Amino acid sequence: MGLRKIVLDVLKPLKGHSIPEFAETLISVEGVRRVSVIVNEIDVETVTLTVTVEGPDIDYGDLKETVERLGAVIHSVDQVVVESEEEEE
Amino acid sequence: MGLRKIVLDVLKPLKGHSIPEFAETLISVEGVRRVSVIVNEIDVETVTLTVTVEGPDIDYGDLKETVERLGAVIHSVDQVVVESEEEEE
Amino acid sequence: MGLRKIVLDVLKPLKGHSIPEFAETLISVEGVRRVSVIVNEIDVETVTLTVTVEGPDIDYGDLKETVERLGAVIHSVDQVVVESEEEEE
Amino acid sequence: MGLRKIVLDVLKPLKGHSIPEFAETLISVEGVRRVSVIVNEIDVETVTLTVTVEGPDIDYGDLKETVERLGAVIHSVDQVVVESEEEEE
Amino acid sequence: MGLRKIVLDVLKPLKGHSIPEFAETLISVEGVRRVSVIVNEIDVETVTLTVTVEGPDIDYGDLKETVERLGAVIHSVDQVVVESEEEEE
Amino acid sequence: MGLRKIVLDVLKPLKGHSIPEFAETLISVEGVRRVSVIVNEIDVETVTLTVTVEGPDIDYGDLKETVERLGAVIHSVDQVVVESEEEEE
Amino acid sequence: MGLRKIVLDVLKPLKGHSIPEFAETLISVEGVRRVSVIVNEIDVETVTLTVTVEGPDIDYGDLKETVERLGAVIHSVDQVVVESEEEEE
Repeated sequence: MGLRKIVLDVLKPLKGHSIPEFAETLISVEGVRRVSVIVNEIDVETVTLTVTVEGPDIDYGDLKETVERLGAVIHSVDQVVVESEEEEE
Repeated sequence: MGLRKIVLDVLKPLKGHSIPEFAETLISVEGVRRVSVIVNEIDVETVTLTVTVEGPDIDYGDLKETVERLGAVIHSVDQVVVESEEEEE
Repeated sequence: MGLRKIVLDVLKPLKGHSIPEFAETLISVEGVRRVSVIVNEIDVETVTLTVTVEGPDIDYGDLKETVERLGAVIHSVDQVVVESEEEEE
Repeated sequence: MGLRKIVLDVLKPLKGHSIPEFAETLISVEGVRRVSVIVNEIDVETVTLTVTVEGPDIDYGDLKETVERLGAVIHSVDQVVVESEEEEE
Repeated sequence: MGLRKIVLDVLKPLKGHSIPEFAETLISVEGVRRVSVIVNEIDVETVTLTVTVEGPDIDYGDLKETVERLGAVIHSVDQVVVESEEEEE
Repeated sequence: MGLRKIVLDVLKPLKGHSIPEFAETLISVEGVRRVSVIVNEIDVETVTLTVTVEGPDIDYGDLKETVERLGAVIHSVDQVVVESEEEEE
Repeated sequence: MGLRKIVLDVLKPLKGHSIPEFAETLISVEGVRRVSVIVNEIDVETVTLTVTVEGPDIDYGDLKETVERLGAVIHSVDQVVVESEEEEE
């Protein structure tokens, strides 16, 4: 019953953490193994990111909290993959 | 004679369960191993989802019931794959 | 000299069997191992389906009969693959 | 020096043999292992087919004769693959 | 220093050799293992072919001569792949 | 917690280092194994490059410094992939 | 720190060496294993080529000199891949 993959549409202020720092902070979330960040649009004060988080059992509450602690906002959840314990991808 | 894969077009109220919670509830349906949810459209009060459910022998009655118990509606069945016992994908 | 794959364009009345039931009935046809049904168009009273049937030696007569017994009509055969005994895919 | 693959554009009368029967007759041609027939266009009295024939050493004369014996006409040869004996695909 | 692959744009008179015969003659060229002929355009008196020739060490002089002996003309060389002896594809 | 991949949009003066020299200097950055440079646009005095840097644990500070020491400017970070130690790609 | 791949946009006079001869001369450059030449455009007196050179450690100076000795001009470097010694592709 683990959350294996989640794709988020995220709005991040331009100022503050760099993209590599942002990704490196998310990797520390419980159950996360891989974070990929694609920059979609750069505006005057913000950047729109597609954040793909993968791992054996991602803690979504912790992930959401960490994104917000970094000053960013989750616009929407674009995709979610859940798998039962018996089958590992 | 097992139902291996089913793709559903689902309408879910925005309020209520989050997408990760929605997917995590479907994984508990009899015979389901993997649930992937893609968010296609976000309206004022609802979201349109493409829900792909995979497993060795999915119980469609239980799946339908679980989707509805979560307050969502199956708009249409988009794809179905059935395989006989002798051949496992 | 076995019929390994056949793709059919099928018209099914909306009322009656559900798509999963329709696919589960076709899997019981002689020589069939896998049935995939894609829903292409939903009209007021009918659905248009692309039905892909695979197996080591599909009995086309039995398949056609089963489709019709379910109240559906084969519009056209879109693809056929035949292989000789020596080579299994 | 074997003919391994040939793709034909074929015109077949609608009446007469069904597509599965047509494909099953071609598989009996000398040196043929696999026949795939795709239906491209259905007219009032004829169907236009893309017929892909594969095998270790296809006898093109026999293939052509068999197509014509079935009442169909080869419009054009669209692709041909020949390989020398040393290298089997 | 072997020529491993060459793609030719060839103009062939409609009359004369059939496409399978044309391909079967090219396979006899020194160092050729596989010949693929795709028919691009059929005009009143000629056909335009894309001829892909592969082998461990194709003799281009012999290939050109053979194409011309068959009454066809090389319009252009579209692609060439050369590899040194140490690395075989 | 290593930075495995970073894609940069870089502006480089035409004069100065050649593209091969530019790439060969970036490979010396701590934790970098592979540098791919694609030239997107050539202007009168500058070239726009997509620089993809991969490695087990890329030092982004060192990378940024090296790019700037070569007289180039990082326009934007287009993609970042971070992986935790347990999983190597 | 080896140059593994370089893609060049090259202008070659129509007269002089044939495309196969051109490719066969480049394969002799130090550190080159594979040369692929695609013909993009044929003008009255020149041809525009995309030349992809691969090898374990390509000597770019020698490559450039060889291209020019053949009477051709490097219009631009389109892509470059460099890898450190530890990782061979």
